[in-house]
Amino acid sequence: MYKFIENGTVTTVQGFKAAGIHSGIKKKKKDLSLIYSENECSVAGTFTINKVKAAPLLLSQDVIAKNGKVKAVLVNSGNANACTGEKGYQDAIESQKAVADVLKINQNEVLVSSTGVIGQLMPMEKLLKGIKKVVPELSVEGGFDAAQGIMTTDTKMKSFAVEIQLSKGTVKIGSICKGSGMIMPNMATMLGFITCDAQIDNALIKKMLVDAVGVSFNKISVDGETSTNDMVILMANGLSKIEVKENTEDYNLFLEGLTALCKEMAKSIISDGEGATKLVTVNILNAKTKKDADMVGKSIANSNLVKTALYGEDANWGRIMSAAGMSGANIKPEKITISLNDLTILKPNYEIILDEEKAKVILAKSEFAINVDLAQGSENVTWWTCDLTNEYVNINANYRT
Amino acid sequence: MYKFIENGTVTTVQGFKAAGIHSGIKKKKKDLSLIYSENECSVAGTFTINKVKAAPLLLSQDVIAKNGKVKAVLVNSGNANACTGEKGYQDAIESQKAVADVLKINQNEVLVSSTGVIGQLMPMEKLLKGIKKVVPELSVEGGFDAAQGIMTTDTKMKSFAVEIQLSKGTVKIGSICKGSGMIMPNMATMLGFITCDAQIDNALIKKMLVDAVGVSFNKISVDGETSTNDMVILMANGLSKIEVKENTEDYNLFLEGLTALCKEMAKSIISDGEGATKLVTVNILNAKTKKDADMVGKSIANSNLVKTALYGEDANWGRIMSAAGMSGANIKPEKITISLNDLTILKPNYEIILDEEKAKVILAKSEFAINVDLAQGSENVTWWTCDLTNEYVNINANYRT
Repeated sequence: MYKFIENGTVTTVQGFKAAGIHSGIKKKKKDLSLIYSENECSVAGTFTINKVKAAPLLLSQDVIAKNGKVKAVLVNSGNANACTGEKGYQDAIESQKAVADVLKINQNEVLVSSTGVIGQLMPMEKLLKGIKKVVPELSVEGGFDAAQGIMTTDTKMKSFAVEIQLSKGTVKIGSICKGSGMIMPNMATMLGFITCDAQIDNALIKKMLVDAVGVSFNKISVDGETSTNDMVILMANGLSKIEVKENTEDYNLFLEGLTALCKEMAKSIISDGEGATKLVTVNILNAKTKKDADMVGKSIANSNLVKTALYGEDANWGRIMSAAGMSGANIKPEKITISLNDLTILKPNYEIILDEEKAKVILAKSEFAINVDLAQGSENVTWWTCDLTNEYVNINANYRT
Repeated sequence: MYKFIENGTVTTVQGFKAAGIHSGIKKKKKDLSLIYSENECSVAGTFTINKVKAAPLLLSQDVIAKNGKVKAVLVNSGNANACTGEKGYQDAIESQKAVADVLKINQNEVLVSSTGVIGQLMPMEKLLKGIKKVVPELSVEGGFDAAQGIMTTDTKMKSFAVEIQLSKGTVKIGSICKGSGMIMPNMATMLGFITCDAQIDNALIKKMLVDAVGVSFNKISVDGETSTNDMVILMANGLSKIEVKENTEDYNLFLEGLTALCKEMAKSIISDGEGATKLVTVNILNAKTKKDADMVGKSIANSNLVKTALYGEDANWGRIMSAAGMSGANIKPEKITISLNDLTILKPNYEIILDEEKAKVILAKSEFAINVDLAQGSENVTWWTCDLTNEYVNINANYRT
């Protein structure tokens, strides 16, 4: 059993402090966040599959692979430190070392993460001053500040927590994340930081994180773009003294809670997608294989024509069919049933039963589901997408300048 | 040696007549075209790989496979006759039969093709009346009318012809095509109709058509959408009495001319892409394999973030790098050189030499090239794309209604 905690965040979990400040990388807004646990944490991460990987991402991957225990994560927004070559990597190491020095911990207990413009060197003077400024701000109430410090084009702060009842007591998982454009994480994700007070070893939280990310962050698309900086980090400090082991009922309960949290994080990113006005769930039902269901869902969630039709509130099921057909999945078009929430609009053999008036009412909502029943088997996959609007074009035509 | 013929079209080729009329499928504009050759023609076609295939496309595929010689192609716009089930297929057959009756030719000498809204039954009464009306309009000057009759969201008529000097004389190839949105043909294409007076057998023109389409229509993207109705048809009536055989110099000359024609057709579609203001050539150079080059080109040509940056006239090479990185191709990011026309903006090891002023001048043009040198081998592939604009969103949010 899990339940969401109102106003939950990374510092909702005992033993975690956080802070978010303005260091000057961005003009006015908060741009530097730190999450810290005095107790060392088990840690797992999932990272972008883009072959162009940002320097801090490479460094954090290395830390987790070699050290496996961490205490702090530094995250800046406004500059991605991606495509910055050897100098960028040295800058990432220097910022890691600066955090360790101020916190008086080991350098290899610090993860670093960046998001923002690609291809510009990090303004190190500002960053190093910022690090000295952010550490004293650490507090058990700093989760929301940290959530704000990692935002780029996001319009809303993204912060959540769940409480999970296990056999021997209660554990908490808290999180912050950011993401609005360049979103189709595909085996990784945008930035997400998850804290937890359960006792779990690295191998096990990695396994659970991969499972949870697979059905949440890896099933969303704003624009089909896999970023250079995507990462999700899960840290567990063990302070609850409640251990989670493999092949137990507690494992299932914990994974269920973690998955629910990751889905909520992923959906918060889509509903704040650049320019988006609608959060649309795409349920692919009764596919022959999971892979087929996934391909169809991904193709529909990424179709510019489906997404502009959603913006136009147009029940254009022909575009949904065309997107399904071009997905490469094993489908029989004539078997497909399409519905909007509970309103069926297309039955097998292309029997159109579209009630335009009723469809309009659903399409005008800010959240609804498109259900595509392939009638080929019993595998289901859910994707989430948003509409493609003029505002998306405006934001991205003018972002860098 | 080939050269383009000014104001060329399908009827520039001897023996071909054409017409385009308004039949009432669309409100006002021309919506029904016919291309006709009294002499029977060798024929080849390439067709969409979307698993959802329109009824007329299935019928035309069948005609070419079974009969292999044709005299006429009927094309309507305004209704795609896609996702219309068995009734749609019967409608396609009925229209084929109607054309054959009026022209007094065999039913299996008629190809049919449709483009427009998906998922609505063809208004057969209007179409059948239109067929009776279009046949008497056939003329050797009707190519432009036919080009107009196949347009949907196209703003410009697309019509071209080339003359090719072969060893024993001159042959001509003429063409019309349409396409503006739902464009990433991928092993097939939007609608394109090509006429020719050379003597070539079906197997050979199929081979040449596949080659030519592979480097033209299959290398363009407006929005990454593969339509249900894509097809290119090439008909050769042999009236020049000049034969083209395999493994000859004439074969190479003919293929060269055909390829140049197909590229011109493909580029005309991109430069008239829905809402597009720029035609951008994406040259991927020195890849390890053709497939790697193709994956990188496709990823860049389809990236909404690259395409909105083009709209914003922003030399955002970071987005080009990120799109290359997420392509799945075998690349080493640090080896990449990027240039706009002749202006290098990024050298290997992320050495940025971007002159923003000079870049602005190029990006403000309506046509320019992005060159991405992977420095991994010697394979090159060219894609063509356009910018993603507010007008694309407007057109597609409001198309059906």
